[in-house]
Amino acid sequence: MSSSFGQIFRATTFGESHGGGVGVVIDGCPPRLPIAVEEIQRDLDRRRPGQSRLVTQRQEADEVEILSGVFEGVTLGSPIALLVRNTDARPQAYDHMKDVFRPSHADYTTQAKYGVRNWQGGGRSSARETIGRVAAAAIARALLRRVAGVEVLAWVSSVHEIDAVVDLDSVTLDDVEATPTRCPDPEAAARIEAAIDAARRAGDSLGGVVTCVARNVPVGLGDPVFDKLDATLGGAMLSLPAAKGVEIGSGFAGTRLTGLVHNDPFEPGPDGRPITTTNNSGGIQGGISNGADVVLRVAFKPTGTISSEQKTVDRDNNPVTLAAKGRHDPCVLPRAVPLVEAMTLLVLADHYLRQRAVDVLPPLDG
Amino acid sequence: MSSSFGQIFRATTFGESHGGGVGVVIDGCPPRLPIAVEEIQRDLDRRRPGQSRLVTQRQEADEVEILSGVFEGVTLGSPIALLVRNTDARPQAYDHMKDVFRPSHADYTTQAKYGVRNWQGGGRSSARETIGRVAAAAIARALLRRVAGVEVLAWVSSVHEIDAVVDLDSVTLDDVEATPTRCPDPEAAARIEAAIDAARRAGDSLGGVVTCVARNVPVGLGDPVFDKLDATLGGAMLSLPAAKGVEIGSGFAGTRLTGLVHNDPFEPGPDGRPITTTNNSGGIQGGISNGADVVLRVAFKPTGTISSEQKTVDRDNNPVTLAAKGRHDPCVLPRAVPLVEAMTLLVLADHYLRQRAVDVLPPLDG
Amino acid sequence: MSSSFGQIFRATTFGESHGGGVGVVIDGCPPRLPIAVEEIQRDLDRRRPGQSRLVTQRQEADEVEILSGVFEGVTLGSPIALLVRNTDARPQAYDHMKDVFRPSHADYTTQAKYGVRNWQGGGRSSARETIGRVAAAAIARALLRRVAGVEVLAWVSSVHEIDAVVDLDSVTLDDVEATPTRCPDPEAAARIEAAIDAARRAGDSLGGVVTCVARNVPVGLGDPVFDKLDATLGGAMLSLPAAKGVEIGSGFAGTRLTGLVHNDPFEPGPDGRPITTTNNSGGIQGGISNGADVVLRVAFKPTGTISSEQKTVDRDNNPVTLAAKGRHDPCVLPRAVPLVEAMTLLVLADHYLRQRAVDVLPPLDG
Amino acid sequence: MSSSFGQIFRATTFGESHGGGVGVVIDGCPPRLPIAVEEIQRDLDRRRPGQSRLVTQRQEADEVEILSGVFEGVTLGSPIALLVRNTDARPQAYDHMKDVFRPSHADYTTQAKYGVRNWQGGGRSSARETIGRVAAAAIARALLRRVAGVEVLAWVSSVHEIDAVVDLDSVTLDDVEATPTRCPDPEAAARIEAAIDAARRAGDSLGGVVTCVARNVPVGLGDPVFDKLDATLGGAMLSLPAAKGVEIGSGFAGTRLTGLVHNDPFEPGPDGRPITTTNNSGGIQGGISNGADVVLRVAFKPTGTISSEQKTVDRDNNPVTLAAKGRHDPCVLPRAVPLVEAMTLLVLADHYLRQRAVDVLPPLDG
Repeated sequence: MSSSFGQIFRATTFGESHGGGVGVVIDGCPPRLPIAVEEIQRDLDRRRPGQSRLVTQRQEADEVEILSGVFEGVTLGSPIALLVRNTDARPQAYDHMKDVFRPSHADYTTQAKYGVRNWQGGGRSSARETIGRVAAAAIARALLRRVAGVEVLAWVSSVHEIDAVVDLDSVTLDDVEATPTRCPDPEAAARIEAAIDAARRAGDSLGGVVTCVARNVPVGLGDPVFDKLDATLGGAMLSLPAAKGVEIGSGFAGTRLTGLVHNDPFEPGPDGRPITTTNNSGGIQGGISNGADVVLRVAFKPTGTISSEQKTVDRDNNPVTLAAKGRHDPCVLPRAVPLVEAMTLLVLADHYLRQRAVDVLPPLDG
Repeated sequence: MSSSFGQIFRATTFGESHGGGVGVVIDGCPPRLPIAVEEIQRDLDRRRPGQSRLVTQRQEADEVEILSGVFEGVTLGSPIALLVRNTDARPQAYDHMKDVFRPSHADYTTQAKYGVRNWQGGGRSSARETIGRVAAAAIARALLRRVAGVEVLAWVSSVHEIDAVVDLDSVTLDDVEATPTRCPDPEAAARIEAAIDAARRAGDSLGGVVTCVARNVPVGLGDPVFDKLDATLGGAMLSLPAAKGVEIGSGFAGTRLTGLVHNDPFEPGPDGRPITTTNNSGGIQGGISNGADVVLRVAFKPTGTISSEQKTVDRDNNPVTLAAKGRHDPCVLPRAVPLVEAMTLLVLADHYLRQRAVDVLPPLDG
Repeated sequence: MSSSFGQIFRATTFGESHGGGVGVVIDGCPPRLPIAVEEIQRDLDRRRPGQSRLVTQRQEADEVEILSGVFEGVTLGSPIALLVRNTDARPQAYDHMKDVFRPSHADYTTQAKYGVRNWQGGGRSSARETIGRVAAAAIARALLRRVAGVEVLAWVSSVHEIDAVVDLDSVTLDDVEATPTRCPDPEAAARIEAAIDAARRAGDSLGGVVTCVARNVPVGLGDPVFDKLDATLGGAMLSLPAAKGVEIGSGFAGTRLTGLVHNDPFEPGPDGRPITTTNNSGGIQGGISNGADVVLRVAFKPTGTISSEQKTVDRDNNPVTLAAKGRHDPCVLPRAVPLVEAMTLLVLADHYLRQRAVDVLPPLDG
Repeated sequence: MSSSFGQIFRATTFGESHGGGVGVVIDGCPPRLPIAVEEIQRDLDRRRPGQSRLVTQRQEADEVEILSGVFEGVTLGSPIALLVRNTDARPQAYDHMKDVFRPSHADYTTQAKYGVRNWQGGGRSSARETIGRVAAAAIARALLRRVAGVEVLAWVSSVHEIDAVVDLDSVTLDDVEATPTRCPDPEAAARIEAAIDAARRAGDSLGGVVTCVARNVPVGLGDPVFDKLDATLGGAMLSLPAAKGVEIGSGFAGTRLTGLVHNDPFEPGPDGRPITTTNNSGGIQGGISNGADVVLRVAFKPTGTISSEQKTVDRDNNPVTLAAKGRHDPCVLPRAVPLVEAMTLLVLADHYLRQRAVDVLPPLDG
C-alpha cells in the first residue's frame, strides 16, 4: 500500500538493503521516449555511496538493468522494470544490532508495526530503497526535458551551522558537482567538508538543508485542493529518509513578513502572460505552477546511526548501550541532493501528464 | 483527480465559494460508529468566519446536513455525504476583480490552468472548500477517539514576529479556545490580537505558525516509503490554503543539532515497550509512529488579499493596480487551527485503517 | 472504498434509497465543456421509475441540482456535484421486511457485512444509487460526443425466452424509445410487454439481456493488462444491480466457433487504417479498441423482490415466509438500458482521458 | 496506469515476452505469512507451456526468484518482487510478422495505441505477462488458506462443442490435473484432447469455457456499488488474454428463468447464519459474498494465432496474407485454468483485507 508514487507516471519501488536486489517498476510512462541505460546509470552514480570520504565507504556498484518496457532505445508504453542487484551485503556487520533498536532509527517502529524485521541492515528503510526512486526519476527527467525543457537542480545549502550563499538563478550542475559536498558555494563547501570529517572522527553526525529549483516548469501544473503542486512536492520530500521539514518559496521565514512585502506583484510578461517580480510564492500559487521557478528547501536531520555509545533498549525491553559499527554516513546531505531532485522530477512528470489528460477541449471564446 | 484524500478513509470534497454549496463524501468509514450531526457542526463552527473581529466578518451559518450514510445515529458503512449550502454569497463584491489577477492568489494560475474561472470569489481555492475537510474530520475524530483514544489539538504558536510559549504536554482545548487568537499563551495572544487589528487598519496582512500535537497515537501507523506518516501529514498540511512549510518534530531547527544531541534515547517503558526520553523525532521514526506524541508545525503566509493598493495585471496582460474590497481575513492563523487538526485527523484515521487491513496474521513465535 | 469509479474521469456516488438524497461527485472532468442541467435531467428521466405500467409505479421526480463545478454553462474543471433529493420515501412500506431477509437480495449480506442496515428500502443496494451513475454519465456523454463524436446506445435484446431481432448497425435511439419495453424489435416488444404484465399478475419476475453498442470509439482506448477496455467494461456492467453476466463481441457463443471462422480479417480501410470485415472481437483486440463498434451484452437476472410467498429466515435465523409488498419492478430490463449506457459512457470517458495523458510525444520516424 | 491490480493486496506486473524477464511486485501483503519459493514455483509450473502436446511446445523453464519481501521464510510486509527470466526467446520466429498485423490479435491495436511495438512476440499482450499474475496469486492463495481456509479451483468445462459434466461440490484438484486437458470429466477430456489435436493439424484453433469455484469464502466480502465482488471478479476475468465473457452463478442461462425459480431460498444454517438451498446467486448477493461457494464461468475465444493462411494488412495498409509460424497453442483452455484461479485469488485476497480494514468497531447491541 505504500510503495507506489504518482497517479499516471507511477513508480513502484521494491527491495531491501539485503536480499536479491532493489528496483522499480514505472507504469504510465509515455511511449516513444528515447532512453538509454546510461542516462539512468548516470543518475544512479550520483546517488551511490563510496564516492568520496564524506559519505559511507560501502562499495556498491549499483549497476542497473532494464528488464522491460524499452525496445530499440525507446519506451514502449509498457511498464519499465529496472533492477539493481545487491552485491556488497555484509549481514554480519549488523549482528550486534540484531536485537537492539538504534535510537531515532526505524528499527523499533518496523518491529512494532510488522512483528518481523530483516535485521541485516535497514531493511525497507535503508537508503538503498532510494535507488528505485532515482532510477525512475532519470526517466522522468528525460520526459520533462523533452516535452517542456524542464531542468531540476538541487544542492546542499546548509550543513549544521554552515550556511551557503547561492544564487538561485545562475547556479549550475557543474557548480554543484564541483566538490563532494554538493554545496556550490566553495567557501562554505570547504567548511562543510571539514565539519563532516570532524563529526565522523567524533562518532557524531550532522544534518542540513537541501535547496531545489525547477526551471521552465509549465504554467498550470498542480490541482487546487489535496494535490496542490506544493502538497505533492512536500509529501514527496518528507518521504525521503531523514527528512524532517520542507518549505516552498518563502516558507517559515515568510511568516515573519507582512502581506504587502510578501505578495509577488504581477507585471506584463514578454509572451502575453504575467510574470512576478519577486518569487516568495516559490513558483506556485493556489497550488498551481505560475511559470516562475519552483523553489523548495528540505531539512534533513543528523544521521541517526552513529558510532558513539548511546542509550537504548533491546527487543526484550532491557536497557542497553549501543555503538554502531558498520559503514554509515556521518552526514546524508551530499547524497540527499539527487534524492531531492528525484522526487521533484517524479512529482512534475506526474502532474504534467495529469494536466495533459484533462486539457483536451478548445479554449472558450473571449 | 485532486479532490479526494485518503486510501481507505477517503474524503472527496466539492464546491466553490459561490454556487449551490460545498461539502464532502466520505467513503470507507467503518460501520457502527455513533455520530451526531451536532459533533460535525461543532467542528464546523470553529472553522466558521465571523466569530470575532479578528477574522473575516462574512456571516456564514454553515449549517451542515447529513445526506446519507448515517441511520439511527450510527454510520452504515456507506458513503457519508455532508452538505453545507452557500448562503451569504455577494458576487457583486468581486465585480472589480473579475478581470484582474490578485497578486499571490490563485486567480491567474486558475485561469491559466483551466481557461475558465468562477470569478465570484475564490472558486475552488476559496477557504470555503475546507468546510468539507473539517466536516469529514469530525467523523475521523469520533472514529479515532473510539478505537484508540487519540486526541488531536492545534494552536497558534506564532503570528508575524510574536512567538508564543506553550507547553506541548499540558496545553488543552480550553486553553486554545480561551481567546479568539487561538493562541494558548495569554500574553502572546494579547499582542497577536493587537497586531492583527493593526494590520487590518493598515490594509496589510500577517502570517504565522500553527503547532499541532496528536496524543495516544498507536505505535505502527505509517508506511516506510512513500506513505510515511510524516510524508502524508506533510502533504496534507501543504494542501491547506496559504501553507508554505511544514516541520515534523525538530524540523529545520534540528538540522543545527548533531546526532548525539538530536537522537532520542530509548528507555524501557511501563508496558514492555520502549519509550523515548526526548521527542526530536516528533513521534515518527522511519515514517512510522513510535507511540510518542506526533508533533508538527505549519507555516502560513500572510494573506494574499489585502485592501492596500498593489501592482498587478489584468486578463489582457495590461498593468493595473488593485485594492481588494470585500471581507477578507487579515490573518488566517486563528481559522487555520481547526484546518490543521482536520488534516491530521484525516491522515491518522486513514493510516489506522490501513494498518488494520494488513495486521491480520498471528505473531511469530520467538 | 467502493463508491468511486474511474481513474481520471472519476465518479463518486452517494446516497441510499431513504435519507436526504442520492447523487454523485465527478472529479477530473475537463474544463470548458458546455453542459446544461437539462441534458442531465433528460438522461435521468429515462432511468426514472413510473414511466409506464411496465416498471415500478413509484413516483420519483428525481429532479437534479448542480451543486458545483459548472459556471455560466461550462464546466470549471472542479468537482461537479449533482444532487437528487429523496421525496417519495415510504419507509412503512418496508416495515414487514425489517427483520426478514429477502431471498436473492442484498438484505442478508448487507447485515452480515456491516452489522447494521437501513431497512427502509434497499439502502445502498437500491436502484436509486444508479441515479448518480446516470447523472455522471450524462456529462461523460457530452464530453465524448464533443471530443470524438462517440455515440452509445443500448436496448433490450431479450426478456425471459423472447429474443429480439435487431440490426446493430442501423438501430437508433428512436427505435429503442418507441415502446416502454426499450426493445427496438416491435414484434418482440409486444410479446415482452405481455410477458411482463403476466409476470406481475403472477407475483413473479423476469430477467433478460441488454445489448449495447458504442459507435465512433477512437482506436487505442484501453490498456493491455488489467485495465483492458473489455475488462473495465465488464467490471462496470457487473457492478449494476441484478447483472449476472457480460459478453464482449462473440462472447460465450464465440467459444463454439473455430479460429478460422472467429478471427476478424483485416482489410485496408479508407483512411489508411485497417478495418475488420467481421466484428467477433466486439471492437476490442488485446484489450484495446480497434475502431470498430464496441459491442457488449449484459445478463440481468429476474428481479429478486416478488410478491409471491417465499421461504426465508429472519434476523434470528428462524424460518419464515415472506411476500414482498411495496412497489417493485417485475422486470428491470427496460430501466437497465440507460444504466448499461451510463457505465459504458463512464468507462469510455475515463479511457479517453487516460490515453490523452500518455500520448504526448511525437511519432517515431519511419 | 494499467499494470496494477488490487487496492490493498496490490500486484503490479511487468515484462514482455521478449526482453530481460517478466515478474510482479506485490505490495500490501500482510507480514508474517510463511511462504516458500516452491509454492510459487508449483503454481507457475501449472501455467507453463510445453507440459503436453496439447499446448505450445515452447520450453520455458519459468524459474522464479524472490528478489525482496521475504526473509527467513516469512513475508516482511514490504513489497515482494518476483522475477522470471526470459530464456527461450527466438525473435527470428516472429520476423515474418514484424510488419503484418495478425487478425484478432493485439498487433494492430498496440501499434495504433503506442506508435511503437516490440514485434518480437506478443509484447505486453503475450501470455507470458500472466506469469506475474500466477506468481502473485500463489501468495494470495497461501494467505487465504491461512486466514480463512479458502480453496479456489478451476477447470475446463467446455471446449468448442464438447461440454463436460462436473459436480461443483465434489470436484478436486486431482480430478482436474488427471489429464492434460484440465477437464475433470474423463469422457469429455478424451474428446477434447482429440479435438485439440485435430485443430492443430488443421491449422485451426478452438475456444471454450473455464468454470471456477471458491469454497469457504467468508460472508461479507465485496462492496455494494462499483466494487461488488462479482464486478471485480468479472473485470479480473476479462483482463485475461482471449477472455470474451464471464458469468456469475446462473449467468445468461438465469435470464431464461423466472424469479420464483431463480431466487435462492434461505433456511436456517447450522451456525446461526442462514444458508441458501440453491445457489443461482453464485455465492454473491448484492455484490457481497453470502457464504455459499462463489461460482463463475469464463469464455475464452479460439486462439487468434493460427497456422492457416488468413487475410490481413501490413503496416502500410496493404492487403497481405499471413500464415503464422512459431509455436502457438491451438487451444488456450488448459493453460487458462490456473489463470482463472489466479485472478480469483487476487480478487478474494484484496477484498478480504479491505473488509478487515473497516470491520474495526464492536457489534451494535441487538
